[in-house]
Amino acid sequence: MATMQQVADRAGVSIATVSFVVNGTKYVTPATTDRVKAAMRELKFRGNVVARALASRRTRIIALLFPTTGNRFSPTTSEFFMSAAQRASERGYHLVLWPVDPAGDDLDDLVSGGLVDGVILMEVRMDDPRVAVLTDLEVPFTLIGRTRDSAGLPFVDIDFETTIVDSVDHLTALGHRRFGLVLEDIEGTPMAGYAPHLRAESTFRELVAERGLAGTVVYAGAGSEGGRGAAEALLTADPELSAVLVMKDDSAGGLLVGLFDAGRRVPEDVSVLSIASSAANADQHYPRLSTMLAPGRELGTRAADALIEQLDGTSADLPHFLLPCTLRTAESTAAAPAR
Amino acid sequence: MATMQQVADRAGVSIATVSFVVNGTKYVTPATTDRVKAAMRELKFRGNVVARALASRRTRIIALLFPTTGNRFSPTTSEFFMSAAQRASERGYHLVLWPVDPAGDDLDDLVSGGLVDGVILMEVRMDDPRVAVLTDLEVPFTLIGRTRDSAGLPFVDIDFETTIVDSVDHLTALGHRRFGLVLEDIEGTPMAGYAPHLRAESTFRELVAERGLAGTVVYAGAGSEGGRGAAEALLTADPELSAVLVMKDDSAGGLLVGLFDAGRRVPEDVSVLSIASSAANADQHYPRLSTMLAPGRELGTRAADALIEQLDGTSADLPHFLLPCTLRTAESTAAAPAR
Repeated sequence: MATMQQVADRAGVSIATVSFVVNGTKYVTPATTDRVKAAMRELKFRGNVVARALASRRTRIIALLFPTTGNRFSPTTSEFFMSAAQRASERGYHLVLWPVDPAGDDLDDLVSGGLVDGVILMEVRMDDPRVAVLTDLEVPFTLIGRTRDSAGLPFVDIDFETTIVDSVDHLTALGHRRFGLVLEDIEGTPMAGYAPHLRAESTFRELVAERGLAGTVVYAGAGSEGGRGAAEALLTADPELSAVLVMKDDSAGGLLVGLFDAGRRVPEDVSVLSIASSAANADQHYPRLSTMLAPGRELGTRAADALIEQLDGTSADLPHFLLPCTLRTAESTAAAPAR
Repeated sequence: MATMQQVADRAGVSIATVSFVVNGTKYVTPATTDRVKAAMRELKFRGNVVARALASRRTRIIALLFPTTGNRFSPTTSEFFMSAAQRASERGYHLVLWPVDPAGDDLDDLVSGGLVDGVILMEVRMDDPRVAVLTDLEVPFTLIGRTRDSAGLPFVDIDFETTIVDSVDHLTALGHRRFGLVLEDIEGTPMAGYAPHLRAESTFRELVAERGLAGTVVYAGAGSEGGRGAAEALLTADPELSAVLVMKDDSAGGLLVGLFDAGRRVPEDVSVLSIASSAANADQHYPRLSTMLAPGRELGTRAADALIEQLDGTSADLPHFLLPCTLRTAESTAAAPAR
């Protein structure tokens, strides 16, 4: 490996200038920077980030923890993932993908290694044991999602409450009065207590009661079969239902087929609105699904920013960002049928 | 931060024993190991991985590079991703997710930092400029995918050639003679030259010619609209076609709808086989799609293993793994209709 002196000689600058370019500690003109970088490339010089990390006790690595159980990777999660990695990269950090078990048993070992400066936690449950572990380890962290009581915790999350209200508002404006909500059946799985489902469900139930609307909630099994079962369950409970909110991408296709099999056209007889989902999912289906788009990119960017600002000490406030989904109408929603 | 001496005192062992536990350099009994680890936890001692990295000139970090353009995250990619991260973790490495532009312009900067011991490259094109950059940087790497001439490169990949042959074999055994193949239209996009598409297409064209079968290839646009367009284009080109291979998850639903709209029942009139896809995708649809399952988990594990074996010097051979997809029949394929 080349030394800094060799790089300086090759570029015709002082060793201090090379150091400024490598560490970004002082302004160097673009022309000189280019010359130094070219010399570094030619000599295969590797700015020793590791030595710098040791000196500063910081590694500029942040870990994104994801649960090892199940394949819970939706297009929204991917969007979130990629934008967090990209944002970290833009700000001079590196995002490590770290598998951990949902109980958080291995978290301690991972974080105690001193490799990471901070942690982003995703797929948060209402009472998540990993939050206590991270607090105990005194490592800076940010949640994507919220526990039941998250006032004292740094988080960014989808505003599920507002999203449900906006969804029902949109559909009542189209004349709908009788609603269904399809959620994933997670009782008895490692994801039981998954916060988004609980928030969506309780908001929906309160809202329909408050407004004197009809509202039926069903918990669907996996895939298209789950979706067809949900359609049947909804229409059995309320044959007059005219609008369905579905928060379960893998069953949306089956739901459409189930409604069609039961003699309901979408959207002429029943409107279907996909919740906290993506354009990529919406456009797979026919009719293309009207969707409350999850702010995946923005959540990822904000989560990275929130953590990095804690690490860099540029913000003393704990971030509390709640971003609602935004409506993208497509072909699956329309005015309620006349009775 | 606690010192190693403090940990030794708390655990009632010598400082050397603490060092053996931290660095794994010598056998320590499980009981003593537990005592040392408990003391480390209580004192929030962080085994200094960074210092060790400096001493050994290794960081035990490997980077998984993914292209920043487009949202190309399928369930298969996720599976691959997660299993590579998990395998790295099992073997004492950390997988970093690293966004890079498709031209590889920023690769040099990233790798030259000395942060990563090795690199896994995905979404490989036939003539991929990033391969030359990595070779030039002399950093150990493994490809997921293959360039046109990959004999001298380490790679693991789906065996698309065998997958297409197996697909056509399965369907000809069911009596089908007239085939369609649906691929993504990537001409003029940053993914032009994406190797899997080119391999699948050329194998398909050669195979149908060789066996005297009818074969039509169409390139579909995005989502369900692309799928419906593909159904129309296929049936216009060959109204007698009875089997379709589709290698494009986001258009599979639209393809089913398009066939149905054109008066073709699936699978009674036309069989549909999803290629290099996942059970999660298959089960979203109705009928559930018969699928050639991409070996996502196994590819991820093998890619991590292949790279780590290069890094640890436990294997001198360049890995060349080709794994075919495996058939999972569901509801979308059946015997060819009698004419």
